[in-house]
Amino acid sequence: MRLLTFTAAADTSDAADSAATAGRAAGRLGAETDGTVLDLAVLARHAGVPLPHDLLSFVQAGPAARETARELLAADPAGRPAEAVHRLEDVTLRAPLRPGKIIGVGLNYIEHVEESSRSLDTDKDLPPRPVLFGKPATAVTGPGAPILHNADLTTQLDWECELAVVIGRTAFRVSEEEAYEHIFGFSILNDISARDQRRSGQWFFSKGQDSYAPFGPVVVTRDEIRDPMALDLSLRVNKVTKQKSNTRHMLFPIARLIADISSGMTLEPGDVIATGSPSGVGAGMVPPQFLRPGDTVEATVEGIGTLTNPVVDAR
Amino acid sequence: MRLLTFTAAADTSDAADSAATAGRAAGRLGAETDGTVLDLAVLARHAGVPLPHDLLSFVQAGPAARETARELLAADPAGRPAEAVHRLEDVTLRAPLRPGKIIGVGLNYIEHVEESSRSLDTDKDLPPRPVLFGKPATAVTGPGAPILHNADLTTQLDWECELAVVIGRTAFRVSEEEAYEHIFGFSILNDISARDQRRSGQWFFSKGQDSYAPFGPVVVTRDEIRDPMALDLSLRVNKVTKQKSNTRHMLFPIARLIADISSGMTLEPGDVIATGSPSGVGAGMVPPQFLRPGDTVEATVEGIGTLTNPVVDAR
Repeated sequence: MRLLTFTAAADTSDAADSAATAGRAAGRLGAETDGTVLDLAVLARHAGVPLPHDLLSFVQAGPAARETARELLAADPAGRPAEAVHRLEDVTLRAPLRPGKIIGVGLNYIEHVEESSRSLDTDKDLPPRPVLFGKPATAVTGPGAPILHNADLTTQLDWECELAVVIGRTAFRVSEEEAYEHIFGFSILNDISARDQRRSGQWFFSKGQDSYAPFGPVVVTRDEIRDPMALDLSLRVNKVTKQKSNTRHMLFPIARLIADISSGMTLEPGDVIATGSPSGVGAGMVPPQFLRPGDTVEATVEGIGTLTNPVVDAR
Repeated sequence: MRLLTFTAAADTSDAADSAATAGRAAGRLGAETDGTVLDLAVLARHAGVPLPHDLLSFVQAGPAARETARELLAADPAGRPAEAVHRLEDVTLRAPLRPGKIIGVGLNYIEHVEESSRSLDTDKDLPPRPVLFGKPATAVTGPGAPILHNADLTTQLDWECELAVVIGRTAFRVSEEEAYEHIFGFSILNDISARDQRRSGQWFFSKGQDSYAPFGPVVVTRDEIRDPMALDLSLRVNKVTKQKSNTRHMLFPIARLIADISSGMTLEPGDVIATGSPSGVGAGMVPPQFLRPGDTVEATVEGIGTLTNPVVDAR
């Protein structure tokens, strides 16, 4: 399933907008098929079956909710009530959900390690263990929503296209072999950084400001991605390709990341792991290139889609 | 008010225990006065007034809920139903609430900057801007709950006694002058670190593991702390004093921290700022001293109380 959170034109959008500002995934739970968005809550009500109304609750509800949703989507399209069916271009997508925590992985593509050691303050050697950092839920923003450029705080706003892993089942001390059983699905996270806001080396304020975690446009359930370690990913700024790689080049693969993080830290349903960025970030260009108001950033991961965000002046 | 989250012996504790493991503040909303814990939900029901049933919802509900609670606590004690009144020693305190995010401040006491540069990998110079890092909500644990010592991951488990600021009102781009209006109250956070789990300099896994954020025992509302920038704070391990200072020695005072963080990052009701640790951490001792299973750590902040946690072997 390709699950998403959306608002339709008819929705009173005040509440949705203010919640989105604070990183919340306001809106309805939907599923995308062939350019159509199906409202799962409407389908469930019509069929007289219970189903959580938002994606985070849906993830937390476990396999039974997924099975219900699959059955609703598999039913004869002729029986769908009209108000359950929207054209994709008629709805506004929101961030799929508000994660409990976002764990970022730094320096997880070999060429990016080299690039980063040239242009930033990181080591030349490959890290012996995953380099982990946090981004708060308030940093999340949705597809199409602005990345906030505040020139009073940064002149080095940078991009990083990443495969996002959405946790589906609580994980504490799980082995690499069991790791995939704890995955709900996959999405895209653009790990935005204000490179000049690192604080004594810590990346939290540099990577954690509001709008620095564009997330979406959909969460694709695990069963629909044949091999998450073999996905093309790329990023464009104003239609010019900046990053282009494949998840097979990760230094620490997804199963290892889940085993490593969960060795000390409980992963909960709805938590997100941003699995790291390939080379081609702005700081690594000669001369460096950074985002400016008016730019448009598109992050693409094979099998998921494209996450597009404009950069706006937010002084 | 001295607000807290508690369970009584009569409560079925299975649900509370498993939620607490995941950093959740399961339990009832109470207020402490002179060794007595008053169950605010019972008082509210008895008086026929609405009141949120947990501290996070209470904080989010704003000044009206605080006013209601104050009136309930000021009413004639003779009119209190017996089931609203517990002796402090008869209840189990939990973490007061589960924060949306915890923002830690590194190197915020001058003597700790010097100590840290000798023993860890930080700069000798005073940081020009607050050094910010994140701890996830899953790291939170309550008063009396174990700090997990996993010798497979660390032999350098360390303590840091800190004044915790609990946000009461959404803050984005607030000035230092307005900062205090966004504070709900104050508590204690013990910023536990596995010094040998820094990852390429990032502190998130070192400071973010389960149980690495003992929090409590109470949240004291802002009106009851005359000057939060003049509080003695201290920490003892097995009754031996390791840290002893006063919040007046903070490099960046609370108002500056709120203004700085909120310049780029929305602070939400229930978010916690751990304002930094004075000198006297284990890594700075000659030779270094670290926590071991069987130790007991007590963190005290004037006007708030003492947060006590045992260290247990959790391999």
